[in-house]
Amino acid sequence: MKKKLKLGLFGFGCVGQGLYHVLHETHGVKAEIKKICVKNQSKSRPIADSFFTYKKEDILNDADIDVVVELIDDANAAFEIVKTSLEHGKAVVTANKKMLAEHLEEIYELQKKHNRPVLYEGSVCGSIPVLRNLEEYYDNDLLQSIEGIFNGSTNYILTKVFEERKNYDEALKQAQELGFAESDPSLDVKAFDPKYKLTIAILHTFGVFVKPEDVINIGIDKIAEVDLKYARENGYTIKLIAQARKIGDKVYGFVAPQYIEATNPLASVRNEYNAVQLEGAFAEKQLFVGKGAGSYPTGSAVLSDISALTYDYSYEYKKISQERQVFFSNDALVEAVVSFKGEDIVTSKEFEKFEGGYRGNGYQFLRGTVKLEKLREWSANPEVSVILTTTSKITPLQPVDKKALSFA
Amino acid sequence: MKKKLKLGLFGFGCVGQGLYHVLHETHGVKAEIKKICVKNQSKSRPIADSFFTYKKEDILNDADIDVVVELIDDANAAFEIVKTSLEHGKAVVTANKKMLAEHLEEIYELQKKHNRPVLYEGSVCGSIPVLRNLEEYYDNDLLQSIEGIFNGSTNYILTKVFEERKNYDEALKQAQELGFAESDPSLDVKAFDPKYKLTIAILHTFGVFVKPEDVINIGIDKIAEVDLKYARENGYTIKLIAQARKIGDKVYGFVAPQYIEATNPLASVRNEYNAVQLEGAFAEKQLFVGKGAGSYPTGSAVLSDISALTYDYSYEYKKISQERQVFFSNDALVEAVVSFKGEDIVTSKEFEKFEGGYRGNGYQFLRGTVKLEKLREWSANPEVSVILTTTSKITPLQPVDKKALSFA
Repeated sequence: MKKKLKLGLFGFGCVGQGLYHVLHETHGVKAEIKKICVKNQSKSRPIADSFFTYKKEDILNDADIDVVVELIDDANAAFEIVKTSLEHGKAVVTANKKMLAEHLEEIYELQKKHNRPVLYEGSVCGSIPVLRNLEEYYDNDLLQSIEGIFNGSTNYILTKVFEERKNYDEALKQAQELGFAESDPSLDVKAFDPKYKLTIAILHTFGVFVKPEDVINIGIDKIAEVDLKYARENGYTIKLIAQARKIGDKVYGFVAPQYIEATNPLASVRNEYNAVQLEGAFAEKQLFVGKGAGSYPTGSAVLSDISALTYDYSYEYKKISQERQVFFSNDALVEAVVSFKGEDIVTSKEFEKFEGGYRGNGYQFLRGTVKLEKLREWSANPEVSVILTTTSKITPLQPVDKKALSFA
Repeated sequence: MKKKLKLGLFGFGCVGQGLYHVLHETHGVKAEIKKICVKNQSKSRPIADSFFTYKKEDILNDADIDVVVELIDDANAAFEIVKTSLEHGKAVVTANKKMLAEHLEEIYELQKKHNRPVLYEGSVCGSIPVLRNLEEYYDNDLLQSIEGIFNGSTNYILTKVFEERKNYDEALKQAQELGFAESDPSLDVKAFDPKYKLTIAILHTFGVFVKPEDVINIGIDKIAEVDLKYARENGYTIKLIAQARKIGDKVYGFVAPQYIEATNPLASVRNEYNAVQLEGAFAEKQLFVGKGAGSYPTGSAVLSDISALTYDYSYEYKKISQERQVFFSNDALVEAVVSFKGEDIVTSKEFEKFEGGYRGNGYQFLRGTVKLEKLREWSANPEVSVILTTTSKITPLQPVDKKALSFA
């Protein structure tokens, strides 16, 4: 039977306030907020003062509190809160993707050690129930790939830039005003945020721990007007795509902008909406679309985790034990177009298979098959814009170990 | 810990064979087929004879069998199998939407009485995890509506008719050859199949039992060439849409063809794909897209249910106890276009609010706001084609009881 849970919140920003309202309006979730720990003592708060404290011990040492809901920005402080909460026998709900991505293996071990769950549905694509479905529903299908639009604010920016021909800075400012963009916009536009989410998703899809620094992330911050023009002339849009695929005993994964044809279902995912597409051997392609940012969508995911705790739910990380051991790798080829101003910043020799290029308006475009590590190198160059082709796919550099193929 | 389940199958058609292969290829699901009961003794079978029996007692009376997987066509025989299985202490997995829709309340009571679960994810939209998400993930959100494309074969037919300008009979034949269409095509084209699915979905979305005969279903079998022309000229497509919405303390729901604008995400759901769109107070719009027909997609949903049984999963029907009592009703208005050959088969007086019409090529089109019960009347007339407008919404005939609004 359902327990009535007592919650201690850390942070009362956009998501925390969303949660408060969602919890207040909904019926059926047996949980109530007992205490909220915040940092800023001078800020005026929209709910009664008696809820608030400035000392974390007021929550962590309160034996009456069953669940700590961690909703602060600072990843290091957040990890300390998670760790101490588990040590004190409390379950944890968090949506902090950076903290999770950086500490996944420790958090997995800490849950086993203290026998208390950490749930984090809100950390990956806001309101879309990605992790819960990967854990529960796709526990038996042989998943081959996960890909999608994992960042709401860059998708909002790209939508505005394409559909309303807004300029980039204006679109970013609008996204921030609407509360979709992180306080540090580089987390979004340089694709760190979707990379953290992909890191978490890779664990629940394939049972593989990967460090975020090993996952290549190319942002949308260097996309130039000529790239947009190229896209429009070819009937494409550009989306920031996170993707991971299992081939043989390797998992390849990265985040990069990609040209997308109008008939691709991801093309119609607009504004702050996110999308996750799973490909399994039997269920085939499954697409989930929902709001990936904003206080209510994320608040509803956090509430779903709290509700699951009233039923003693925990992630079982079934893929870790189920799958034959697989390894993360960047030794693969993809197809990309690079563009830059001027001459020879990138040369055709840097491609594994060069397919051609053209010049126009002082810009140069080069297209071909290229190593993932080369993408990382180019992405570090402020003068080079890198965008995957519409038909880009991941091709392993080494021949695939056929015996390791779980489904051919 | 996971149990190794012994399965008894009834039926070995398209879905049964899909399940056999899925179970054979996948790892991690601790279940094996012990016996398969089939009807036709002369048919040659693709797997060893030792699996087969022609007597249902060989499964129902075998104490060693934990789970009965019911995959036969005949809804009455299927219900007897479900009932006897529960009485004999066996769990049941089924994808028989007609049987389920007609016996939902009895099956709910039988599960409580015998304390054994019946799971039926495969019955609603094939591979899309609709019921599991409604039960588990959306247990706390205040769901306002569910709608979508619930039938793969009619969607396949409409896609072919629109995109490849195939004629209707040719497209139907192709759908049947590909195994998407039911053996009795009228279940699909007259929209009984999606109605059964909607009936099941209404229970898990709103906690309301409704009899399938109370749900109005209008098929695609009377859509004429002039309707397709009207759609093309206006940049629309036509989809067969199942929808249910809670307004106040009433739930309204029906299945009907609808004109769909190109920007609507449902427009891009093509061929045998299905789609389910949920609208909640907090998670807002969520779209799930996946294959709704075919042996492997449905087989994978059935396998997910079997896998869930190894963890003692059962539907808790939380909405029944959680929600304030709500009632199914057809007392609502929608917006529709009717078309017919000749004169005055339908008159403008039959609309609550007539918006206009035109004649051309011997056909007459009338457009306006109309009672749901009038749609049912028109749909019984073989000369009249009924299609909802792109902007049609459900408007209650009676004023809404404000106190009953759970979220305004």
